[in-house]
Amino acid sequence: MTDRRLQEDVLVIGAGLLGTSIGLALTEKGVDVSFADVSPTAVRLAVDYGAGRAARAGDEPGLVVVSVPPDVTASTVAQALREHPRALVTDVASVKGSVLAELHELGADVSRYLGTHPMAGRERGGPISARADLFLGRPWVLAGHDGISYRRAGAIEDLILDVGAVPIEMSVDEHDRSVALISHVPQLVASAMAARLRTGGNAAVGLAGQGVRDVTRIAGSDPGLWVQILSANAEPVAEILTALRDDVDALLGALRDPEAPGSRKAIAELIGAGNAGVARLPGKHGDDRRFAQLVVMIDDTPGQLARLLTEIGELGVNMEDLRLEHSPGAPIGFAEVSVLPEAEAELVSALEERGWRIAGAS
Amino acid sequence: MTDRRLQEDVLVIGAGLLGTSIGLALTEKGVDVSFADVSPTAVRLAVDYGAGRAARAGDEPGLVVVSVPPDVTASTVAQALREHPRALVTDVASVKGSVLAELHELGADVSRYLGTHPMAGRERGGPISARADLFLGRPWVLAGHDGISYRRAGAIEDLILDVGAVPIEMSVDEHDRSVALISHVPQLVASAMAARLRTGGNAAVGLAGQGVRDVTRIAGSDPGLWVQILSANAEPVAEILTALRDDVDALLGALRDPEAPGSRKAIAELIGAGNAGVARLPGKHGDDRRFAQLVVMIDDTPGQLARLLTEIGELGVNMEDLRLEHSPGAPIGFAEVSVLPEAEAELVSALEERGWRIAGAS
Repeated sequence: MTDRRLQEDVLVIGAGLLGTSIGLALTEKGVDVSFADVSPTAVRLAVDYGAGRAARAGDEPGLVVVSVPPDVTASTVAQALREHPRALVTDVASVKGSVLAELHELGADVSRYLGTHPMAGRERGGPISARADLFLGRPWVLAGHDGISYRRAGAIEDLILDVGAVPIEMSVDEHDRSVALISHVPQLVASAMAARLRTGGNAAVGLAGQGVRDVTRIAGSDPGLWVQILSANAEPVAEILTALRDDVDALLGALRDPEAPGSRKAIAELIGAGNAGVARLPGKHGDDRRFAQLVVMIDDTPGQLARLLTEIGELGVNMEDLRLEHSPGAPIGFAEVSVLPEAEAELVSALEERGWRIAGAS
Repeated sequence: MTDRRLQEDVLVIGAGLLGTSIGLALTEKGVDVSFADVSPTAVRLAVDYGAGRAARAGDEPGLVVVSVPPDVTASTVAQALREHPRALVTDVASVKGSVLAELHELGADVSRYLGTHPMAGRERGGPISARADLFLGRPWVLAGHDGISYRRAGAIEDLILDVGAVPIEMSVDEHDRSVALISHVPQLVASAMAARLRTGGNAAVGLAGQGVRDVTRIAGSDPGLWVQILSANAEPVAEILTALRDDVDALLGALRDPEAPGSRKAIAELIGAGNAGVARLPGKHGDDRRFAQLVVMIDDTPGQLARLLTEIGELGVNMEDLRLEHSPGAPIGFAEVSVLPEAEAELVSALEERGWRIAGAS
């Protein structure tokens, strides 16, 4: 507890996944955390889990964290600003511009409000899924606006550092455009692609490999939550999605007449633009495309993969990344192991000596 | 070699990744495999790798496998049919309708031709990347057409079984529509999404999580190869992509006026359709969405993941799938382990007892 930064008492409004996880992490640091929620059961659960105590009349928290669904975030923040006239108030909703606009409409005192967005979460919500280490190593955006100074908002940055996250400063507008690009539009693209899979026969989807599986993995998301997120960030999402739609339209023109002059160039340019875009994504250590990959065959018995990784460790090689691939219905799997390029050749021959079958190396 | 089915001598035309891999697998079974290629170096490499011998004048192969780039496949097949008037000829190009159409145009004797498509491959090509086990457990499509009987094509099915692949019978048309759906359109969608990432600032792409990484992973593909594939399968690809574009257009209408009646419903319906589509993809054992997932924190030291998997094995639990997730710049990673739901609760408590931090469980 010697490394605790936050000196304020904290009131968390909304004992869901994020609120309870914040409570667990801050309680571990010795912060006084109290909970309020429209559901008394949720508060009792959060308290039972050790995330803090129930809020009491007369509490004077220095910092209020609003962690309620996006569509009630602004009204809850406004009420907190009224009820706690000396407290700093923040929220953790995944869109920021619509919350700030609604606060202005409500005439709230936004000089004490700074919205944030932790880039963490789980597919399953609720206090039951909460974890003290949910935010460890994750980016947590502070979405700045003109009405507040960062100096004044220092307690919020203290909270972010105390839960182990990485504070990232952005304007509200920059945040909303950023998450539209790296979260909201990818969700829609994955959903639109997955929606097409309803139209294929069983034989067609039976040929599916790892590529289409990866493209559509996040298409399993909850429609109700995404309606709230997308409606609240509609403009930036529509702008990026329109540009993407225009690219698809250009491509469709080329595909309708692939022999026409320029058609092949149009196709090559879109694939090339995709090469350039995907290369910008940070990997494990900033850029995992720099690593060499080898594909090792493993059979479907317990302990096989563990044995492989143990032997890689025994050989003194640090595995940078690992991806598993399966063939539907086959008793064989493939482990794609990423290592530093200089370690690759020796690792391949050492593994082959130990009897592993290498199905491919870069 | 007792389980060998194929009784014909095989000529492989094109000593690239697929051709050389076929040679390696068949040579292991004792089949006489000869190689021809426009590049004498490629033939010498394939022979050095043990994939077979160089073709000689006077060879009378019973089966010719054409494994050359898509745009020269048909002319190479036609020439093989002429030069080997008693042989059965196949090819392994990833589109089938355009090859068959071109063979008809060339007046080739298609009664001895049956195209196939092994659903296997690697990002890196060439004989150097070839592996005898490249096809193990993978689907390998036989693309049937009216001019040939499956009985006559028995040697091709023998080859597929001998290299360890799973033969799947489809019509040429069904094949091309299937790969448009599960391979070609997903490639374009991933590329179009990745192309948008060029437009974001460094701060924006710095927030990228596993979702956008998965959606865009295959966007690193080779533009030259994809121009050939997409031009040769343009019609089925354009049809599916048009339907997807129409869905995106409908969504854009909703996003431009999210408060209008029906807008929220339109958004929810697309996400819901995506839920239904992605649920159709086969998983490891037919449907890996039935498994429970737990997320275990691992630090970035050699042997940590191996130790986790060893301990899961010691606990007698069979891991069904594994996915690693990293936070850019953080020394912490997460391993998402899929297990049978009935094994989950006990595994979580046993791992926690051994000191593992479970960042979440389903």
